[in-house]
Amino acid sequence: MSDKRQAKKEALRTRLLEVTTEQMRQNGIEDLRARDIAKEAGCAVGSLYTTFEDLDDLILHINSNTLQSLGAALALGQQEIDEPAARMEKLACDYLDFALQNYRLWRAVFDHKWPEEKPVPNWHLDNQHQLFLKIAIPLKELLPDADEELLLLEARTLFAAIHGIITLSLEERYAAVQKSILKQQIIKFTKLIIAGLRA
Amino acid sequence: MSDKRQAKKEALRTRLLEVTTEQMRQNGIEDLRARDIAKEAGCAVGSLYTTFEDLDDLILHINSNTLQSLGAALALGQQEIDEPAARMEKLACDYLDFALQNYRLWRAVFDHKWPEEKPVPNWHLDNQHQLFLKIAIPLKELLPDADEELLLLEARTLFAAIHGIITLSLEERYAAVQKSILKQQIIKFTKLIIAGLRA
Repeated sequence: MSDKRQAKKEALRTRLLEVTTEQMRQNGIEDLRARDIAKEAGCAVGSLYTTFEDLDDLILHINSNTLQSLGAALALGQQEIDEPAARMEKLACDYLDFALQNYRLWRAVFDHKWPEEKPVPNWHLDNQHQLFLKIAIPLKELLPDADEELLLLEARTLFAAIHGIITLSLEERYAAVQKSILKQQIIKFTKLIIAGLRA
Repeated sequence: MSDKRQAKKEALRTRLLEVTTEQMRQNGIEDLRARDIAKEAGCAVGSLYTTFEDLDDLILHINSNTLQSLGAALALGQQEIDEPAARMEKLACDYLDFALQNYRLWRAVFDHKWPEEKPVPNWHLDNQHQLFLKIAIPLKELLPDADEELLLLEARTLFAAIHGIITLSLEERYAAVQKSILKQQIIKFTKLIIAGLRA
């Protein structure tokens, strides 16, 4: 492929990702249509399908970007905090803030149903793994004897617990904690976990 | 209304609930159609809409039944266990078992989107409240100084945390804990919470 053609292809890819990200940020994934995306990006529907395998593949790339942005936000918040318990608390609060500020993109990560018959691509699994490694770092200081496998298991479990509290609250579902006291409740819950880990 | 007409109305109501519950148990709520339900129940679509306000109302009645069954399962598991920490652990494990055994009905409770413009009926909110009261009972022994409002808040938070771990795992989502070790991980997590509460 010539350099020029390659550059054009890259530009289209970037534009499709931008346009779809914006549509997902506005409306989530429920009403996402290839035709609307192509129209907004100024290309033919066929060009979308030569750039991405299908709509699921396109959404997965955006969800992967969302996880990377989340990882970056969590890493940024950890800087200049030494104490592991304070870092765990900051992680939980930063996760809440990220969910609030990127609500529909964040929901898409959990609502998107990847086709059962296709394996989830490795690049996406790696991306998830990187996120849990970030949570495992402060946890290692609280659980110095745990090996990496155990730390990652605990990181996944704590993430899922905090995620459950935030999700039910933001969706105003059963067991919802009122939004006005959600951050305070997340902090209390993280302190409880840390007290348990240290007991 | 004559007794006979009233009895016929009640019978249709029961049949519609049974048929819809079975369809939800098999396929969830995504493909639920009034026409299919009426056909299976042997009534006209119009009769469905004189018995229930709309499909959302019908689903909410079934979700309320599911919450009641869950409450009954949790209450049964609590009998003959005195120690509050052991009771909390049993609650969490019974919740997992209920979710596994009634997977699609349980998902429907959380996936069903109630129309934003309509207030959730009080009978359904009462039903939820009863469930959290059940969780608050063993919690009261661990937090003897907490008033009812605080106990219910803590019960909701712990429920949401355990729910988050179970949901992500059963949906095989990000942060999923492998199903084979889920119960063990739930027990470990509950012990951690209890150690934190007692610290």
